[in-house]
Amino acid sequence: MAITTIHRHQHHLGWDNRNAPLVNVAPGDRLALELMDASRGLMTPAATDATIAELDVANANPLTGPVHIDGAEPGDTLVVRILDYALSDWGWTAIIPGFGLLADDFPDAMLHLSRYDAAQVEFAPGIRLPTRPFAGTIGVAPAAPGHHSAIPPLACGGNMDVRSLVAGTTLYLPVEVPGALFSVGDGHAAQGDGELCGTAIETTLGIEVEFDLIKGETIPYPRFRAPASAWPGGGERLVTTGIGPDLYTAAQDAARYLIDRLCREQGMAPELAYCLLSVAANLRIAELVNQPQWTVACEIPLEIFT
Amino acid sequence: MAITTIHRHQHHLGWDNRNAPLVNVAPGDRLALELMDASRGLMTPAATDATIAELDVANANPLTGPVHIDGAEPGDTLVVRILDYALSDWGWTAIIPGFGLLADDFPDAMLHLSRYDAAQVEFAPGIRLPTRPFAGTIGVAPAAPGHHSAIPPLACGGNMDVRSLVAGTTLYLPVEVPGALFSVGDGHAAQGDGELCGTAIETTLGIEVEFDLIKGETIPYPRFRAPASAWPGGGERLVTTGIGPDLYTAAQDAARYLIDRLCREQGMAPELAYCLLSVAANLRIAELVNQPQWTVACEIPLEIFT
Repeated sequence: MAITTIHRHQHHLGWDNRNAPLVNVAPGDRLALELMDASRGLMTPAATDATIAELDVANANPLTGPVHIDGAEPGDTLVVRILDYALSDWGWTAIIPGFGLLADDFPDAMLHLSRYDAAQVEFAPGIRLPTRPFAGTIGVAPAAPGHHSAIPPLACGGNMDVRSLVAGTTLYLPVEVPGALFSVGDGHAAQGDGELCGTAIETTLGIEVEFDLIKGETIPYPRFRAPASAWPGGGERLVTTGIGPDLYTAAQDAARYLIDRLCREQGMAPELAYCLLSVAANLRIAELVNQPQWTVACEIPLEIFT
Repeated sequence: MAITTIHRHQHHLGWDNRNAPLVNVAPGDRLALELMDASRGLMTPAATDATIAELDVANANPLTGPVHIDGAEPGDTLVVRILDYALSDWGWTAIIPGFGLLADDFPDAMLHLSRYDAAQVEFAPGIRLPTRPFAGTIGVAPAAPGHHSAIPPLACGGNMDVRSLVAGTTLYLPVEVPGALFSVGDGHAAQGDGELCGTAIETTLGIEVEFDLIKGETIPYPRFRAPASAWPGGGERLVTTGIGPDLYTAAQDAARYLIDRLCREQGMAPELAYCLLSVAANLRIAELVNQPQWTVACEIPLEIFT
């Protein structure tokens, strides 16, 4: 089956529910989208430390889209099955003055380029990372009017930088406007929890997705069902998120939400689910650099349900 | 070789550098310690929800010790190799009113008992967790005078609840007082990141450790070198911690510290190490329930260094 491709020049900057959709799709449809890198093409294999001064925050995280999903209404849940990524062969990592968890410790700009293939990122001599491509920014348009920066994530998704969004992941997004207005960008070939310096292995990517819709199911934040490949050697897990300006509150929200899912999906009593999280969940700071909103992920391995 | 055993009745409540050492050991010595559970024996297999009302915070987390390490002086690093744990066969998990991440959501006391063996915890019908025993509270006496609660962790360790402290882990603790005054308690048969409800699979344990000393090496917080078994299916990792009342600052501290270790141990430039964390580290909220201090763990898998 031939599927529609949205090309990387078909992007927007920031979130705005006034952006006109590029395409209409129905639940069950597949779509291929090409993603620019987070620098909107400024970075090339010939870039240097000096190129970082040319970064313009207004150009950061261009988003391919928006995609209108037929029948999606505020209060529904948009299902996005991430089927595959198409890779580039190089990526960049930068220390950007004033940005990142340790901005005060690292005041000087630095650009670091890496080559990668489907298996490995050659980060530096003697340092190879498993290639785990994912879209750092993925979401739907917010109901709040006007233009919103693409840097901080919102409750309806965006720049969450959750490294578990690899191929095989099913993503659930809260729909806030008619048609959902899905967009995606910020390709990463690999990233650690927290994306500490503010950049990953930044790269162009292609992403192939399949949409579905759950009518009338309202969710507070994005969540994921991630395959074993998201955690090398680990098993399949349920993941919820909490997003906000305070890590503690975000962790509360993520935990509360996972308890709710375990009650719904496993028929557990909330108190028992709460205890189960205490003894079996992972709680990861997915990112704390996308000012002023941080993302906490709460994970439960599915293999424990026998 | 016969090794000395310190029995579980030889414990103290809270941290105080005036506590008299039970035993003197030299670097290279091994020691076996028996740990009471965090309720100081109040919980039994016959306990019920009503037993929770009898919990007394003054009795929480009894600590077996202290152990005096010959030659340890403030500014040194105490090395604790965790060789083995001896298991019980049951543990408890409780919702304690006013305690835990979601204290407002769960106001009522609940006690949940689990059986376990060396392989699995039978948490509930159809829910089995891998048994991963570790000591939730482990550390040395603080320099700050007077009595300190055993609930919040301190910069010299204590109630960090880092689940990676399984057998095979090497723990590094900053020595703050002459002789270090090492103590350990709070046995857990399994725990998730964050220990969200405030309790794990609480259990009595035995722990066998070997001490060593690094003279003149001053470290800011505990760190660990954890074996693959700490992450089922994962590889060996370097782990640093940040501890404090603010998760963001704790994450900064943990990251700063891991950068420093990568510079020392792998000869990396700090800027490159900073980028490496951004693309390959895990950042986990180890706990956010031991008021008023939270623990963040920053991990780097060693398998990436080829």
